[in-house]
Amino acid sequence: MPDRDAIAAFLAAEFPQTRCTVLSVEPGGATVAHAVGPAELRPGGTVSGPVLMAVADVALYVAVLGAIGLVPLAVTTDLSIHFLRKPAADRRVVGVCRLMKVGQRLAVGEVTLYSEGLDEPVAHAVGTYAIPPGPRA
Amino acid sequence: MPDRDAIAAFLAAEFPQTRCTVLSVEPGGATVAHAVGPAELRPGGTVSGPVLMAVADVALYVAVLGAIGLVPLAVTTDLSIHFLRKPAADRRVVGVCRLMKVGQRLAVGEVTLYSEGLDEPVAHAVGTYAIPPGPRA
Amino acid sequence: MPDRDAIAAFLAAEFPQTRCTVLSVEPGGATVAHAVGPAELRPGGTVSGPVLMAVADVALYVAVLGAIGLVPLAVTTDLSIHFLRKPAADRRVVGVCRLMKVGQRLAVGEVTLYSEGLDEPVAHAVGTYAIPPGPRA
Amino acid sequence: MPDRDAIAAFLAAEFPQTRCTVLSVEPGGATVAHAVGPAELRPGGTVSGPVLMAVADVALYVAVLGAIGLVPLAVTTDLSIHFLRKPAADRRVVGVCRLMKVGQRLAVGEVTLYSEGLDEPVAHAVGTYAIPPGPRA
Repeated sequence: MPDRDAIAAFLAAEFPQTRCTVLSVEPGGATVAHAVGPAELRPGGTVSGPVLMAVADVALYVAVLGAIGLVPLAVTTDLSIHFLRKPAADRRVVGVCRLMKVGQRLAVGEVTLYSEGLDEPVAHAVGTYAIPPGPRA
Repeated sequence: MPDRDAIAAFLAAEFPQTRCTVLSVEPGGATVAHAVGPAELRPGGTVSGPVLMAVADVALYVAVLGAIGLVPLAVTTDLSIHFLRKPAADRRVVGVCRLMKVGQRLAVGEVTLYSEGLDEPVAHAVGTYAIPPGPRA
Repeated sequence: MPDRDAIAAFLAAEFPQTRCTVLSVEPGGATVAHAVGPAELRPGGTVSGPVLMAVADVALYVAVLGAIGLVPLAVTTDLSIHFLRKPAADRRVVGVCRLMKVGQRLAVGEVTLYSEGLDEPVAHAVGTYAIPPGPRA
Repeated sequence: MPDRDAIAAFLAAEFPQTRCTVLSVEPGGATVAHAVGPAELRPGGTVSGPVLMAVADVALYVAVLGAIGLVPLAVTTDLSIHFLRKPAADRRVVGVCRLMKVGQRLAVGEVTLYSEGLDEPVAHAVGTYAIPPGPRA
């Protein structure tokens, strides 16, 4: 299975917009981080919801790649997120994904999102990836 | 209740990152559009999932503002999205929100996302906004 | 494709617990109803949440069967429900499903739940069915 | 805060249909179990999806009661479930809830569902409860 650096390079090619950094990829999970600056903040110092959703989506994608290999055609089929607390304006958002199922056709994982260094989660997401048929990488 | 222009101005102030345009606000719903260009596309010409999630979130926000007034502290509490089809690379994403409930404390709506001008939806989202206590705008 | 009676018979065999009645099956959708009596009510006259979830699941199942034929191995992969209003204690629950996608591998639909005869929905669900590989019925 | 027996008695009064047993209530979580017999099984020995949804709902309810006291008017506002594996036909379904947020107005928790004694989860749910205004029990 690909290591962190290989997945980070693949992510940069496949998902060039993402501002997420791959922190680690473990069997069954992955951790990513997203910088927070003016582009991510709303008035009052709230990290915007779409940023949190994007971090959840990328964390799940990275974890799936770590489990099935560098398969370009894996696509999200659903993502459900609950927003729990106001994120800190001056900390990165960290997304910790844990895969709950990696089947032949679908992978399902949950992502807990934190303001880096703080204990209480700011959001929690669950999502599904559809895995393309055929031999895996 | 605020009209389209008032909501568009409020959105620009409260959500300065958004690239969504408010197309219309009706009783019980709203329609927004998001340009699609290199910043929204992944290799192969797919609009990235986070863009679709962002459009859904903004469409719901705009519809809620249209229903309860320009209340800055309304926050998304959950958003669930299903991705249905590959969006077109050369068409705007349009999000059509229909509110299903506007209560004292929570508003719930669904958003159907299209590639502009095409009939089949590319994604569908459902989300909840928490409405702050106190007199409404 | 199977008609209403064929689907009702199939449902009775495959899902013997269900107390749902198939009212209609149309291209792209289906309508089911569930009786409400003491077994469905909680104190105060609220139809219990699990009953509403069960109606949503069956409505989606029936609509999928109507679209792909009487395939026994189709299974729900996710279901998301929002509860909107207190259902009436003395009316059947009706679930109206509209399919949003019927692909080779996944079908996605939404279900709006009503107290029969009333206009405002009591709940809204979205769910996915995984369709088994191989020739369809 | 109420103990396990008090919550079990309250559950029996408020939710008389449930066949769930309260196994434990801890700060921030709860565990419940549901017997599996002919009434829960579909042909082929699958525990029906609505049973799993019901266990998730009750596990979340019990955990919320453990956190806020015996408040009768707490209601589920949303529940999202992903089905992961076929449950065993001859084991109880166990739902383990962990609360992620207990706010003034909303509580959010996740529930992992198992076939009793087996390690891999059969389903995973996330849900929100709305907490009624006013003094807590």
